[in-house]
Amino acid sequence: MISYEEALDLINKEFGKINLATEDVELTESLNRIIAEDVFADVDLPPFDNSAMDGYAIKFNPERSRNIIGEVSAGNFKEYIVGENDAVGITTGSKIPEGSDTVIPVEDVSIENDILLFNDNAKLKKGINVRLKGSDLLKGSITVNKFTMINPSVIATLASCGKDKVKVFRKLKAGILATGDELIPVSEKPSHDKIRASNNYALHAAFQSINQEPVSYGFLNDDRNAIAEKVKTILDSDIDIFVTTGGVSVGKYDFLKEVFEESGVKKIFWKINIKPGMPFYFGVYQTTDKPVLAFGLPGNPVSALVNFYIFIEPAIRKLLNQKEKEVYKATLQDDIRKKDGKKHFSRGTIYNGTDGWEVKSHSSQSSGNYYELGNANCLIITEAEIRNPKKGDVVKCILI
Amino acid sequence: MISYEEALDLINKEFGKINLATEDVELTESLNRIIAEDVFADVDLPPFDNSAMDGYAIKFNPERSRNIIGEVSAGNFKEYIVGENDAVGITTGSKIPEGSDTVIPVEDVSIENDILLFNDNAKLKKGINVRLKGSDLLKGSITVNKFTMINPSVIATLASCGKDKVKVFRKLKAGILATGDELIPVSEKPSHDKIRASNNYALHAAFQSINQEPVSYGFLNDDRNAIAEKVKTILDSDIDIFVTTGGVSVGKYDFLKEVFEESGVKKIFWKINIKPGMPFYFGVYQTTDKPVLAFGLPGNPVSALVNFYIFIEPAIRKLLNQKEKEVYKATLQDDIRKKDGKKHFSRGTIYNGTDGWEVKSHSSQSSGNYYELGNANCLIITEAEIRNPKKGDVVKCILI
Repeated sequence: MISYEEALDLINKEFGKINLATEDVELTESLNRIIAEDVFADVDLPPFDNSAMDGYAIKFNPERSRNIIGEVSAGNFKEYIVGENDAVGITTGSKIPEGSDTVIPVEDVSIENDILLFNDNAKLKKGINVRLKGSDLLKGSITVNKFTMINPSVIATLASCGKDKVKVFRKLKAGILATGDELIPVSEKPSHDKIRASNNYALHAAFQSINQEPVSYGFLNDDRNAIAEKVKTILDSDIDIFVTTGGVSVGKYDFLKEVFEESGVKKIFWKINIKPGMPFYFGVYQTTDKPVLAFGLPGNPVSALVNFYIFIEPAIRKLLNQKEKEVYKATLQDDIRKKDGKKHFSRGTIYNGTDGWEVKSHSSQSSGNYYELGNANCLIITEAEIRNPKKGDVVKCILI
Repeated sequence: MISYEEALDLINKEFGKINLATEDVELTESLNRIIAEDVFADVDLPPFDNSAMDGYAIKFNPERSRNIIGEVSAGNFKEYIVGENDAVGITTGSKIPEGSDTVIPVEDVSIENDILLFNDNAKLKKGINVRLKGSDLLKGSITVNKFTMINPSVIATLASCGKDKVKVFRKLKAGILATGDELIPVSEKPSHDKIRASNNYALHAAFQSINQEPVSYGFLNDDRNAIAEKVKTILDSDIDIFVTTGGVSVGKYDFLKEVFEESGVKKIFWKINIKPGMPFYFGVYQTTDKPVLAFGLPGNPVSALVNFYIFIEPAIRKLLNQKEKEVYKATLQDDIRKKDGKKHFSRGTIYNGTDGWEVKSHSSQSSGNYYELGNANCLIITEAEIRNPKKGDVVKCILI
């Protein structure tokens, strides 16, 4: 059985072969997308010397009074030539009139008989409260780097560079199919030995949560021919990733890995030394123009979702050149039972304690217990070689 | 001038008067929405005693061999009565046959002449590898609490409770209008003393980022009559929040607060002892059936967005009963110049250092510099009474 790290390396390697396409989207629709071009300033930012305050523009000298010769406001510039004894009223963001180099804030002055007087505590220093042209960024320099995730302030920057449309990476398309004789539709009430099919909903949301494009194919019961036919159809559609749940363990009905291979998927590995989510199948289907990465996840709802968080999400982040998720070091608030040599990803609740981050491990850790997963906000990572982490140990956590 | 805390209290108080409406959405469209009902389990979870492993279901006794009398798999239950000497092959998730109480994993057994033999190292303990009916949750108990933000694992839980539709809080509708004579459309190239109108794009994205519904009204130049007419129309539309930028300082063209009041907005406060974002106007417009909260933000792109992060986002979180954003304590990597008695929210970059969180303050902190804001991932909070925090000081940060 391969290790978590080996499995992730193999997955990353195949993701690296995906050809990232791009598309142009409206700036108002670009939030959380990954930009696919370097964006350059087409003007200096700010585009002109301007005032950082409401006040008076002056030519610096030690005198503490001036004659007011006019006023300018943002977007209403008038030409003045400011001499040694002059001041021009100015509002925040207004262009600085010729001759002036300094702005005295309105709070620091008084006016008597049309003469501007600086208060005793007014700070008088050449250049204060003036934002120089190009001081944020010079024309021609990069304002937003390729692979930046677009957030509200990046959008402000893009707007200031004239980008009302922006080139972003196309979302990866992920087909999702759940399998299992035990599954019934969510709208039905389970009886006997049936459970509602929740995995396709959870994985659909998981791909949405990282801003990719899920396509749900619902679920199929364990009819090998029907599954084989569906799998082939999905593999030949326009998806980049194909995720199935169920049918990858060692039971009689666990034929999904065989179906994958009969459909032309080349197996990369099966089974990883982790818990939960050990019976994980990964293969690649090569169409004429692109690879489809095929993930056979376990049918357990928690296992499937944990596998998504620890393999698929990190691999997509890496493909899109995003930083790895932060690892939080937190003090464990209870013992964790871990007797085996697998790497564990246990559900926990992390919070800001009095003395740094603290994390509570959830009690059951049953891989069927999605109620508990729903209440978790992190996965606690325990390395394969560690046994039974104790209350007070510092453990690594990633937020989910 | 009121303090940050006083201002936020007053804003929270008015948000508290908003009547939160609800709507039903498809489960597949519910990600990141806030659930508006307690959801109860309509069946026990799991709905039946089932196996946690692929293996053999037995009735516990110290004997280390059994006769295999049949097999069951998930969704393919058959009735067996398991006696002291019997075993039934079972797959993960399958219902446990009558009489059995324990599952021995397939890895721990061998079969010789149809006789099941437990390996020497097989753990034999009553009840192992059986997930009891209702052990995750009993029928009738709450599975998802009202006000939970819906994430992928909550979606799995909702699916397992039969919710293919779910009641969530309606998104708040936020009108956005930028004002200023200096503004030109993003598609034009600025010359003279003009700048591109970026605030409406940034605030639009900011409301999207917290999953509310922005409505952009673009921008208007400083024509008082035109602005007054537009403001009145927007206030009387179906919005909950109205955000303007520009026109709230003390200059000649800063008439927006007067326009608000002439339109029937009742002023709650103007100006807060903070930096950036001091000239902040807040008022309430009472229509026949609901309040509209009116925010007059400064025209500076950074100030407007910082005001959003420190007032509007926290108030909406509180209204929706969400936890406050985590405050990270981080070691400052450079000095911050802060000579005044305002509470500062400086842009910074926080990262996981060798010895806990570390944060770099950005150099210019100019409130026009959105390029710098785009590269920041946090705001460093410096309390009003603190002066010049130094490299090595532990400071409070919130992620943006």
